[in-house]
Amino acid sequence: MSVSALPDIPETRPGDDLAALALDALARAGLDVAAGDVFVFTQKIVSKAEGRLVALDEVEPSPEARSWAEAWGRDARVIELVLREASRVVRMERGVLITETRTGLVCANSGVDTSNVPPGCAALLPLDPDASARGLCATLRARLGIAVGVVVSDTFGRPWREGQTDVAIGAAGLRPILDHRGTTDRHGHTLRATRTAIADELAAAADLVLGKTGGTPVALVQGIPFGTADLDGPGARALVRAAEEDLFR
Amino acid sequence: MSVSALPDIPETRPGDDLAALALDALARAGLDVAAGDVFVFTQKIVSKAEGRLVALDEVEPSPEARSWAEAWGRDARVIELVLREASRVVRMERGVLITETRTGLVCANSGVDTSNVPPGCAALLPLDPDASARGLCATLRARLGIAVGVVVSDTFGRPWREGQTDVAIGAAGLRPILDHRGTTDRHGHTLRATRTAIADELAAAADLVLGKTGGTPVALVQGIPFGTADLDGPGARALVRAAEEDLFR
Repeated sequence: MSVSALPDIPETRPGDDLAALALDALARAGLDVAAGDVFVFTQKIVSKAEGRLVALDEVEPSPEARSWAEAWGRDARVIELVLREASRVVRMERGVLITETRTGLVCANSGVDTSNVPPGCAALLPLDPDASARGLCATLRARLGIAVGVVVSDTFGRPWREGQTDVAIGAAGLRPILDHRGTTDRHGHTLRATRTAIADELAAAADLVLGKTGGTPVALVQGIPFGTADLDGPGARALVRAAEEDLFR
Repeated sequence: MSVSALPDIPETRPGDDLAALALDALARAGLDVAAGDVFVFTQKIVSKAEGRLVALDEVEPSPEARSWAEAWGRDARVIELVLREASRVVRMERGVLITETRTGLVCANSGVDTSNVPPGCAALLPLDPDASARGLCATLRARLGIAVGVVVSDTFGRPWREGQTDVAIGAAGLRPILDHRGTTDRHGHTLRATRTAIADELAAAADLVLGKTGGTPVALVQGIPFGTADLDGPGARALVRAAEEDLFR
């Protein structure tokens, strides 16, 4: 399996054709894309192309946002956006604000982020990251004439573990989870619980070559031993645990 | 970056020289290893080589293990091992048993596992996975004459997300976390929170090519843009969040 950062993708603006930008970069890199390959787009470039930037000057913080921001040395306008984007606050203590978004993602700050955007702006998550992935995947498949997959990745923290890893917030054209249950290992033991979060592992692999300064927001993963899926598959929504099965709400 | 499964590593026994097995497989695959490359060993092969298999016949379950196993259709002897390996029970409900191990890992079943081991046995985690990684790394560096890194990986579930990903339970010869705090993005914004859990992302990338049936327990990751570290670095212990900073105990 190989993981390549696509070079020299320009700063993205609302309405930009991300599939075209990725294909141009692919050509510059001299990479031959094949059926089953997966493009990983970082969330920020998708949010920018979809116009999900907010000018902080136009955000009026609520008293709650103002008071918490003051207590923890944060920008009250950003905290206001975080609370507006949240369907539920999971933890709001010691300066850490962990929320659940309307698409069920549990992450810091509802995914609202001021890095890699113009000064004075914040980026919100795409409204429907699976729909973003499906749109990109449909365009790439049409232009390339082969079945590729798409992951939209973002950087999430984890309970109990330091540091962050990239996970899939959107996916299309691939199975987000590979269910090993019922297969047997070489001792004849039947696997009982293993379901690999393929889309998350692809996002993590891509993060290793993409870095965090925004210059390389798209990766191509090739030689993945899994094959593709239809565009109308479950998407990254399948990676969100249902509330009734969640032991850590 | 490329990620390759090393082919045809034989079933491992206590005392086996895993570094030699990996180097033999490397030669068979015709791969040229370079400084900075990272070997990812799955936990099971390390546990086997270190003799961390237990014959279930020799385990006498406590009344607690017996009663819980009966309620949830589990093997009481395995539950007994899980409880013995735990320093703390994090959740024990609805048939799910999440514990903290003595090295601070929070995972299902204290990492005790009956897959990919001989029938009638269970595998325990290595006693000190960072020490396992350091030993493997020192041997590989000595035999290859170049600075490579080692990750010992295991498959963990995550709160809020379906499926599992591989993470690093041991690491040596590489920085487990890459701290981006203080660097600036291309808009001049200073990154404030980002610390990438490199070792976990390497484990995840390796899992994509290794699968779950035990036939390919070692991967080589090449072309990683980070370089190596001394053998006496922090190891995967640095990925364990300290209790006092943990919002989800």
